Parts: sequence; structure tokens; C-alpha cells
Amino acid sequence: MGEFDLIARYFARVIPELGHAGAGARTVAVGIGDDCAVLTPTPGHQWLVSADMLVEGRHFLSTVSPRRLGHKALAVNLSDLAACGASPRAFFLSLALPRVDEAFLAGFSQGMFELADAHGIVLAGGDTTAGPLNINITVMGETPTGQALLRSGARPGHEVWVSGTLGDARLALEVFRGTLSLPGAQFDEARLRMEMPEPRVALGRALRGIASAAIDVSDGLIGDIGHVLQRSGVGATLRLADLPRSAILGAQPEDVQQLCLLTGGDDYELVFTARAEDRERVIAAGRESGTPVYRVGRIDAEPGLRVVDGAGRPLALTALSAFDHFKT
Amino acid sequence: MGEFDLIARYFARVIPELGHAGAGARTVAVGIGDDCAVLTPTPGHQWLVSADMLVEGRHFLSTVSPRRLGHKALAVNLSDLAACGASPRAFFLSLALPRVDEAFLAGFSQGMFELADAHGIVLAGGDTTAGPLNINITVMGETPTGQALLRSGARPGHEVWVSGTLGDARLALEVFRGTLSLPGAQFDEARLRMEMPEPRVALGRALRGIASAAIDVSDGLIGDIGHVLQRSGVGATLRLADLPRSAILGAQPEDVQQLCLLTGGDDYELVFTARAEDRERVIAAGRESGTPVYRVGRIDAEPGLRVVDGAGRPLALTALSAFDHFKT
Repeated sequence: MGEFDLIARYFARVIPELGHAGAGARTVAVGIGDDCAVLTPTPGHQWLVSADMLVEGRHFLSTVSPRRLGHKALAVNLSDLAACGASPRAFFLSLALPRVDEAFLAGFSQGMFELADAHGIVLAGGDTTAGPLNINITVMGETPTGQALLRSGARPGHEVWVSGTLGDARLALEVFRGTLSLPGAQFDEARLRMEMPEPRVALGRALRGIASAAIDVSDGLIGDIGHVLQRSGVGATLRLADLPRSAILGAQPEDVQQLCLLTGGDDYELVFTARAEDRERVIAAGRESGTPVYRVGRIDAEPGLRVVDGAGRPLALTALSAFDHFKT
Repeated sequence: MGEFDLIARYFARVIPELGHAGAGARTVAVGIGDDCAVLTPTPGHQWLVSADMLVEGRHFLSTVSPRRLGHKALAVNLSDLAACGASPRAFFLSLALPRVDEAFLAGFSQGMFELADAHGIVLAGGDTTAGPLNINITVMGETPTGQALLRSGARPGHEVWVSGTLGDARLALEVFRGTLSLPGAQFDEARLRMEMPEPRVALGRALRGIASAAIDVSDGLIGDIGHVLQRSGVGATLRLADLPRSAILGAQPEDVQQLCLLTGGDDYELVFTARAEDRERVIAAGRESGTPVYRVGRIDAEPGLRVVDGAGRPLALTALSAFDHFKT
């Protein structure tokens, strides 16, 4: 099968078929099959654009099912749109494959399109080539002009919130690494969090005009909130006991919980800040989007991140650090 | 050096420094450093978006200089914008590197930014990771709404045009492959065409409202014009003798010339069609953009591509075919 057959069979769906793709389908005036895709902006909106590259052994294990991998490759990108409060519109897939593996392509495209359809986003173009397995997706969404959630808006006195639960993806990774073990059903559940993260797109959109800053947890809470603090020129204090965790993680020893909660990547929950007087609006946004949200700390004028235990004593964070793709 | 230091040192230039980046700098409201870039569309315009992934040994040789590679990685993407008549605005770089190689990064980013600055396009985001060398760029440009040059507009009676010269990049590749040899200075010149293609952005923009269809020659003339014919539902006849070639290629044996002209990829010239009554406007667009343009054939109602010799006899094209990333 050649490159063009491959695209035609697995990736070039006719856009009008996607009645449920909604706004994304209206955005894409010309999709796959020309030198460029042609996208029509919504008047009064800005574009939010992000790119994530996934490499085997680093972002996913060779044991992952192609369908879950297709889901995850798009999910991590949708999560960046979610962190900016954007409505998904179009994405571009570049795929390097060692060989044409039809079972892989069928599963991968199925997982990717299932998630795309659920979020009304359209595959509008990309590239395929032979080479070591590499998946790059560039994703595009829109917000009304000036309403994008940025990392730079946190101010002293704002409260820090987290969606969902943190740390299960890392827990699963540690099982794969052999550093701990879990009963089968618990492992399956944690593994699902690692392999099929659900981007918090609806929450991000509901937080427009409410959250003062936001980021998604991809590299670990400490590292990711650190970006917010740096861009905003502030510090923060988080209460360890308030960090939301699953029953599975909650049953682990305290040091495992800390590691997974504070440095576990791949959760793709949102961490965001909001003014204290907007507390009810945040809760309403969580309810409206069907997403649990938890108040876990506050923004300080004093630089740096502090995580305190139940007695208000700061933990030593030096041994913990965010995942860095060139440091491991 | 970690991922964030790497980005800061080689890729995160402060956008206001780029006074000459013009429209691209005005487009990018928020660049590198948040979950997404925030781009402000020009009212009344559409976005043109394309992605190209480059893999070592397939799209470039390991011997290429990092600076030339940085140029080429962006150039092949700008060429897609050129083929649509788009004005470049912003691009996103995803880079997988086996290790942090500062000499590579310094050269690569220099070559990339030199070309970016020349075209007023801004690096607005991307991703870096460890992994087998892989370069993906997603490029974004704008045209006034409805003015994008597409592959689908060629009609019987339209004339076929080519910019610049074809085949030198393939000639250089054949020298690398050892199938032929060239004197040093000629090889250097052909190699420069292969390693530092100049995307025809100004010509593409000048052809808005004039060309009825366009494509860039990346995989070879026969294959690439084939996409125009397919999308337009037409055929074409090209005159071999009129295909523009350099003095270097013109001095080669006839079979080498044919191979390089008809199937040589990596030239990144534009092939486009226009109504016969627009001939003078095409010539003016070439002059205005400083790009040589040559009339090389015509669009036919009869499907298929015919290439004829000086006596009007059709060549046998069966032995020649476009480059396919999964067929070689």
C-alpha cells in the first residue's frame, strides 16, 4: 500500500459525513487533499494552536493498543486546548511509521476518530512517511477574542483548583516499571487513565471568564503549576491533603501517594486559579461541564511553591521534580 | 541541558525583536510559553495550514549541514503555503532529537530563523522530545477569503506553467547515490537546490486571482501535476522541450534530463494553470515577484497526462513515477 492509498483508507474521511462534528466541520472549507487545508475563522475569535509529538518508549509503551494510542495522541493535544478554554476545530496529523501495518492503522485511526468526533474536531491534513514510529498532532481551536485562559493571570489571593483526580497514570507507569504492583482490576483502571486520558475540554470552555490562569497536568503537578507561577510572577501554597486522588491511589503508602500526586504526569487534568469571590462560579462551571473540581491551595505574593501537610508544615520538594524529556 | 533550557536557548526568541517579521508578528498574540499559541486572524481572511514531517535518510541525508536542514524543514512547508497563494504567518516546530547536540541546534535554528525572517513568519510554539531524529513543522498562512489557490480549478484550455527550473535537486541526489557524477562546482550548485530550496511564496501570492490551480513540485512533476488533474477532473499535455532546466541539467544526457525533469522531487517550484487570456497577467506576476515563469503545456478534457517531444510524439511515461514514501 502506498502513501496515498494509506491516507485514503485510514484518514481521508469525507467531512460532510461528520454531521456530529459540528463547528469543526463548518470551519474546514478544504480538508485533506490539497497543498494546505483552508480554514474559515469564526468572526470575533482567536485561534489557539498547540503541537505535541509522541515517541515510542517515552510517551507510550510498545504494549499499548493502537486504538488507545490513537485516542491518547489526540487527547494530549485536546488537553492543551482545554487548558486555554478553547473550542476544538481542526487538527493535523503527521505520522512516521516503520512500515505499513494495517492492524495498527485501523486501530489507531479508530481511537483517534472516536475522540475527534466526541469533541467535534476534524482531521484537516497532515503528512505520512516511513521512519521510526513518531506521531505529531497540531491542534487548533477557537475562543472569543481575548478570552483564552493563559498561564500568566494568577494573582496573590487567587485560589488554586484541580479537576478530577491526580496520580493514577503515574501509578500505572510504576507498575509497568515494576516498582510496585496492583491487583488486576485496579491496574486496569489506572492503566486506562494512563492510556486513555479524557481531556477536560468542556471544563476549560466553562471556565472562560472565570479562571484567571490555567494549565493541564502533563508533566506533573509541581512542574506544571511552576509554569503558571513563573509566567504570573507569583508563588503558591498547596494543601497535600486536599489534592484529589482515586480510591486506588488513596490506598497506597504515603510516599507513593506524594510521588504520584505531585510529580505524576500524563493525568491531563486542569490546574487553574480563580478569584476567591468566583468560588461559586467555579463550582457551577464544574457542575455544568460534568467535571469534579477541588480547591487545593492559594496563590501567594512570595515566589516559589510550597506544599503543606495536614498540620500546615511544608514538605521537602527537592527530591521531587517534573518530568523533563531530556533529563531522564 | 533540559527541555526548557533547550527551548529558551534556541527557539524562544522574543517576538517584538522581529520588527521585520511584519504580519506574522502582528498575528501572534501569545507565542511560545503557554499551553497554546494565541493567533489573531486578519478579518476577511481564511487560514491555510499544512504539515510536513522530515525523517533522516528519507527527506535529508545525515551529511546535510544543520543550517541547511533548518532552512529546508521550513522551506518545504512554506512551499505549501506558496502553492496556495498564502501569506505566511506562524509555524509550529516539533523536534525529536536523539540527544541534545548544541552544534546541531545552533545551526538548525539559525537556518530556520533566517528563512522565517525573510518571509515574515513567526515560530509560535511546538514541542521537543528525545527520540530518533524527526522534524515536523506545521505552517499557517492567510489569504483573503475565497482566494486560496487550490488543485481543483484547472479546466480544459487552461495553460500549464512552471516556475524556475526543475530537476537539479534530483541530479544532486543521483550524485549522492553514485549513479552519476558532476564537476565540483556544478555539484555544489545542484546540491544547494536540493538542500536549500527557495519556496516561491512571492509568486504564489502574486498569482492569487490569476492561477486557476497550483501545486508545488515536491514529489516530482508527473506525480504532482497528477494531483491537479485528479482533483480538477481533467488531463494535460506537457511539452518536454519547454520544461525549464538549468544549464547543468541541460548538459546531461537526454534520459537523465527526462528523469530529473519529470520525476525529480524536492525542487519546490510551482506548477500552476491559468486561462490563456491571462497569459500576460501570469507574466506580470512572475516579473513582480522576481520569479521566472514558463508556459509548458495545456489542460485537456481527455483524462491522463501526456508528455510530448519536439515532434509532438508522446513519451512512454510508464517507467517513470512519482516518489512515494512507502513504495521505495
